[in-house]
Amino acid sequence: MADGRLAGPVRVVGTGLLGTSIALGLRARDIDVTLDDVSPTHVRLAVDLGAGRPASGADAPQLIVVCVPPDVTATVVARELAAFPEALVTDVASVKLAVLDELRASGADVERYIGSHPLAGRERGGPLAARADLFVGRPWVVAAHDAISYRRAGAIDDLILDLGAVLVEMTPEEHDRGVALVSHVPQVVSSLMARRFIEAPSAAVNLAGQGVRDVTRVAASDPDLWVQILGANAAPVREVLLAYRDDLDRFIDALADPEAPGARRRVAEELGGGNVGVARLPGKHGTDKRFTTIVVMVDDRPGQLARLLAEIGEIGVNLEDLRLEHAPGIQVGLAEVQVLPEAAAHLTEELATRGWRIAG
Amino acid sequence: MADGRLAGPVRVVGTGLLGTSIALGLRARDIDVTLDDVSPTHVRLAVDLGAGRPASGADAPQLIVVCVPPDVTATVVARELAAFPEALVTDVASVKLAVLDELRASGADVERYIGSHPLAGRERGGPLAARADLFVGRPWVVAAHDAISYRRAGAIDDLILDLGAVLVEMTPEEHDRGVALVSHVPQVVSSLMARRFIEAPSAAVNLAGQGVRDVTRVAASDPDLWVQILGANAAPVREVLLAYRDDLDRFIDALADPEAPGARRRVAEELGGGNVGVARLPGKHGTDKRFTTIVVMVDDRPGQLARLLAEIGEIGVNLEDLRLEHAPGIQVGLAEVQVLPEAAAHLTEELATRGWRIAG
Repeated sequence: MADGRLAGPVRVVGTGLLGTSIALGLRARDIDVTLDDVSPTHVRLAVDLGAGRPASGADAPQLIVVCVPPDVTATVVARELAAFPEALVTDVASVKLAVLDELRASGADVERYIGSHPLAGRERGGPLAARADLFVGRPWVVAAHDAISYRRAGAIDDLILDLGAVLVEMTPEEHDRGVALVSHVPQVVSSLMARRFIEAPSAAVNLAGQGVRDVTRVAASDPDLWVQILGANAAPVREVLLAYRDDLDRFIDALADPEAPGARRRVAEELGGGNVGVARLPGKHGTDKRFTTIVVMVDDRPGQLARLLAEIGEIGVNLEDLRLEHAPGIQVGLAEVQVLPEAAAHLTEELATRGWRIAG
Repeated sequence: MADGRLAGPVRVVGTGLLGTSIALGLRARDIDVTLDDVSPTHVRLAVDLGAGRPASGADAPQLIVVCVPPDVTATVVARELAAFPEALVTDVASVKLAVLDELRASGADVERYIGSHPLAGRERGGPLAARADLFVGRPWVVAAHDAISYRRAGAIDDLILDLGAVLVEMTPEEHDRGVALVSHVPQVVSSLMARRFIEAPSAAVNLAGQGVRDVTRVAASDPDLWVQILGANAAPVREVLLAYRDDLDRFIDALADPEAPGARRRVAEELGGGNVGVARLPGKHGTDKRFTTIVVMVDDRPGQLARLLAEIGEIGVNLEDLRLEHAPGIQVGLAEVQVLPEAAAHLTEELATRGWRIAG
């Protein structure tokens, strides 16, 4: 670890989506990676993907990254700390305090442990979904605690930077409250919304549009994984849900008599608060006002969208984002093209000149 | 109205997004359209867009479409029924029973009124956001009631079919319960979630990813409009919210002691129910399993995405849907390309041969 850089080997325990993606990212920087998993099939698959070499008894890893389900994270971290008494161990579980508490309670050597959490993922799991660039530009939290020295923790920082992620330092408590708010509670809210459709008439669910599809998209997530996450972060999640329920109760009360004095104002305040809250979220989709959207009608045939994008390229405008929408069974689509505001008027004019139908 | 087709003139009252879009769609089929609005500026704008001609005292409309905010819909419909004693009148408000009840209570001639509701919209409003194809392939509910004859209501059906929408017949009560479930309650759930971010630490909201952005996208909607909608549909919305709150209460209870017997099972059941519910929603995005997604890495430079799509066209595969994602400040994007499952293997192989990096 000369110059503070990772010299490896890095041992990755658990070759699912996150473990294999980490390993692929490290291999892309020529760092020696050894792979271990309870499933020999997963290890072979990860090796075939170029994620590293199978772990052997002769390995002397400097850094160990535990990428196993939240339920077993502390147990595996403790085992790794004991098996490799010189190594620094981290994990990537999406809750941090429960793991640290369990390690402390078990008497593990937490002077060599520091938890972390990359805020990255995909709808699919497993080594086949892994990508070397999964963490590029994404936040990666390092959950600092007092028992580990600054010098020792440096290797984790190197790992994160090597993978192109954005290092974020937080205490385990801050982390767990943060993900309760922006990840765990949104999952619950979405799942409970989607539950309402189970027994609804088909005629009703068939009225669904893009809004409700967005609200309930994450309700398709794996319940097994989420039971572990929510169980391990129950107190912070419950705290946010209680505040959410207070708002919901006020809302339900206001709707009991919407013509009562103050009822409409209360509803307006709750909805207006939603405007303010959503504007605080980072990211391109939906709420980001940095770009201007131009909607272009595109025939739903091979080559049409390509022609549009080729012409946008010819016009010399960079596409910041793009989304294609079309109605089922209809031979026309709408390409929502996001560009810098200063390029929008020029692009709209040029596209119209070239015969494109601009829909907004 | 020979052959049961609209022969016009059709009078459109209210030239916002919906009214102007309806007018544009009818003009595209050469139907005579007259336009009226409390704002002369909006009328002039709609006329300039080619949506029809300004209304005049000499007009004898056969069909009147009222496209004004929900709060004033019944008042304007009653006025139109009185002013044009031969015309059939419809409206497009997103609640149906409240309008009909108000008309009945006011003694309006509901034998010539039938409410309707196109399930279409955009994030932006106003005549400038209007599109002739706004309703193509979208459900459009006709809220049948006993006082109007089948023969008389036929002109509404023609209007809907002329605009390319999918006609759905429901009672006003069925409609209002349906939209409470798939539109109004998702709006509330999303807004209340987003409210939680108002006072959150920046470090926490900065951990947000695509999941929470999807859940809270509609929280950016206009509170003024939604206060009217929720006020007019309070009882059905409240009923769904009460059932939602029951689930939420059970969830909060289970999290009070996640290690208690049965607690995890209850959490798993709530989340699993979300899986079942979301699978019932129609539409392409997120939950639709009809297509296979191929993720291709694309440099964030003009022309690169165009080149990808041109090559997909050359390979002869039709793109069913496409979404571009990239991390802020990073010079690489991920194009999520959806194609028919039978085309996926061929496309993946051909793209790899042409040097594209397939990320999943």
